Amino acid sequence: MRLFRLFVPRTTVSAHCDLPCGVYDPAQARIEAESIKAICEKYQANEDPEFRTRSLIIKEQRAELVKHHLWVLWTDYFKAPHFEKYPHLHGLFNEATKLAGAGGAKGSADPEVAGRLLAKINEISEIFWETKQA
Amino acid sequence: MRLFRLFVPRTTVSAHCDLPCGVYDPAQARIEAESIKAICEKYQANEDPEFRTRSLIIKEQRAELVKHHLWVLWTDYFKAPHFEKYPHLHGLFNEATKLAGAGGAKGSADPEVAGRLLAKINEISEIFWETKQA
Amino acid sequence: MRLFRLFVPRTTVSAHCDLPCGVYDPAQARIEAESIKAICEKYQANEDPEFRTRSLIIKEQRAELVKHHLWVLWTDYFKAPHFEKYPHLHGLFNEATKLAGAGGAKGSADPEVAGRLLAKINEISEIFWETKQA
Amino acid sequence: MRLFRLFVPRTTVSAHCDLPCGVYDPAQARIEAESIKAICEKYQANEDPEFRTRSLIIKEQRAELVKHHLWVLWTDYFKAPHFEKYPHLHGLFNEATKLAGAGGAKGSADPEVAGRLLAKINEISEIFWETKQA
Amino acid sequence: MRLFRLFVPRTTVSAHCDLPCGVYDPAQARIEAESIKAICEKYQANEDPEFRTRSLIIKEQRAELVKHHLWVLWTDYFKAPHFEKYPHLHGLFNEATKLAGAGGAKGSADPEVAGRLLAKINEISEIFWETKQA
Amino acid sequence: MRLFRLFVPRTTVSAHCDLPCGVYDPAQARIEAESIKAICEKYQANEDPEFRTRSLIIKEQRAELVKHHLWVLWTDYFKAPHFEKYPHLHGLFNEATKLAGAGGAKGSADPEVAGRLLAKINEISEIFWETKQA
Repeated sequence: MRLFRLFVPRTTVSAHCDLPCGVYDPAQARIEAESIKAICEKYQANEDPEFRTRSLIIKEQRAELVKHHLWVLWTDYFKAPHFEKYPHLHGLFNEATKLAGAGGAKGSADPEVAGRLLAKINEISEIFWETKQA
Repeated sequence: MRLFRLFVPRTTVSAHCDLPCGVYDPAQARIEAESIKAICEKYQANEDPEFRTRSLIIKEQRAELVKHHLWVLWTDYFKAPHFEKYPHLHGLFNEATKLAGAGGAKGSADPEVAGRLLAKINEISEIFWETKQA
Repeated sequence: MRLFRLFVPRTTVSAHCDLPCGVYDPAQARIEAESIKAICEKYQANEDPEFRTRSLIIKEQRAELVKHHLWVLWTDYFKAPHFEKYPHLHGLFNEATKLAGAGGAKGSADPEVAGRLLAKINEISEIFWETKQA
Repeated sequence: MRLFRLFVPRTTVSAHCDLPCGVYDPAQARIEAESIKAICEKYQANEDPEFRTRSLIIKEQRAELVKHHLWVLWTDYFKAPHFEKYPHLHGLFNEATKLAGAGGAKGSADPEVAGRLLAKINEISEIFWETKQA
Repeated sequence: MRLFRLFVPRTTVSAHCDLPCGVYDPAQARIEAESIKAICEKYQANEDPEFRTRSLIIKEQRAELVKHHLWVLWTDYFKAPHFEKYPHLHGLFNEATKLAGAGGAKGSADPEVAGRLLAKINEISEIFWETKQA
Repeated sequence: MRLFRLFVPRTTVSAHCDLPCGVYDPAQARIEAESIKAICEKYQANEDPEFRTRSLIIKEQRAELVKHHLWVLWTDYFKAPHFEKYPHLHGLFNEATKLAGAGGAKGSADPEVAGRLLAKINEISEIFWETKQA
């Protein structure tokens, strides 16, 4: 799967708390989104109402975490020069967080929607790792 | 104080959870930012180390809430047509949330910094209420 | 709508964290309750089971926030002289928080119940703003 | 220590979530308050600034939990007939939660203040267990 | 009910925050598990879909709290000598927390499963109080 | 840096929520621990009291997240056959979570302590990926 090729060089350390500590990693958002995709697949394959309700409860939490991790990258990691170099970056984050919300992975239990969210996170990751390279 | 003139027509109801319920209100971010400003003023006026530590603990939480409420407006309330009409809106939110973070109200206990955050939230509010009017 | 007449003078600044910062505002509880009412209306108009489950998840969270914001006002903002002047104030808060709980907005998806919660919050707001005036 | 005599008959099961499940227990507030008292004692005995900052961070969280557990008892467990039978019960809860806040265990690192909070929680417990007996 | 015999000597004070304050008490996990059992009983007795969804939402939260309180005991209270003296203690905690999770009280609304979780917590409590005695 | 060699094959998808979704990844604990190490380094290099207090606030949160992510792996991912094959695995997790707590990364601002936590997480990761291979 080509999708996560760029995650390979994991020794690179990034930054994510708002000290800031300087450790950011799009893997945090991606892992939650992978979880959402797996939840959707299990949801579609299981008609037990208790299981389905639990799936939606947990999917809602995971999607909120995706939004949170992406917002942190957008506000805390990316700086003015990045937004100049990648003019569509604002829009990309806005679409990605929308895709994690009511119009996307929160509002839908379709694995395909979760897949689109993952692809969007992947686009962000590619830019993230390019900026770390530089 | 001219600053909150535009908050006056409070009967207008807006939207904020990600059902979405359709009830948004920049007052949520503003109230937390007012709290930060008041904390900073009390911090500067009180040298007791316990009080100062508590101030920083609480300021950190309030600033995180400001970021959260602004992120919600940016992702959940504002739509593509808004971003077309207000091309600087992405940047405005990015700057406002940065001003609530390490480089702003989290990292500083200066009431003036909190004041700048409030002014930024006010700019967002003006646009918000214009879009509700339309 | 007469309901929020008293919210108009928004320039007044109040207090809400437990430093305390001195910034309180019943609008925090009201906004969450407005959200609950909107969720109930959408719930009644939509029979999709996934949507309904999500509605109940989010309504539960919002109702918890209403309770929290009211409790903060009751414990942190109102002082002994207020309770003397308004002898029914304890009961009013107890009823309002109960109305946000299992016997009210948590346990019911009826917009009318949410409306009663909003009316109760409004009663509290009227007293709140009277005490700020004094 | 006479203080917790009344906690003895632990087999009695009570209720605390807002389903409601019907399981309430003042021990939840008491355990957090015991923790606060122990933190205050360790704080007074240790002048290391890192330790002291950590103490205040944790004490703040524990005090918030005390408030929360007490609020739940006040709103969810106690009903109108209880408030009629114990007319000072509203005031007792208001004072206890204030004692857990800025004017009490949050604002002070004095074990004596934590002790007063514990005594107040004990008064509430005595009433609680009386009402369970009835 | 023999189950909670060992909880009787409540005057003993234990430890639970990670300062550490030195106040631990398995009652915290037990109260949440009692709540889960009560929720399951109410769930089985009530076919209203809104009530059932709320039950599952709340049960999920309570089960997470059980896991958390048990993890804290396992990591923060129990030390190497305890694990030497009680060689099955690691396994006991692992099973207990699994019983609070997807394969137990989270995944099931059967009061009998909650009862097994309570029995497991009781086994842990017995060891806990033995170590406090020593 | 040899340390994270084993993280390389990132395309493998694992599991972490308690549906369970089946997506686990020790990277979640590792990223938080990297953050702690970076915070400690910044703490040692900066004597500003506000910065130091903020560092301790954030370090406390990150260390709690490390504990949480490790507990989830221990309870939710690893099963009885794993504990049979790796008899020291219980002890390893117990030590790792203790190293994230008061006796380790919470109680100390020494980067070396954070480094030991990272090494422990790395040991867990090696076993984790071995079990995924199988």
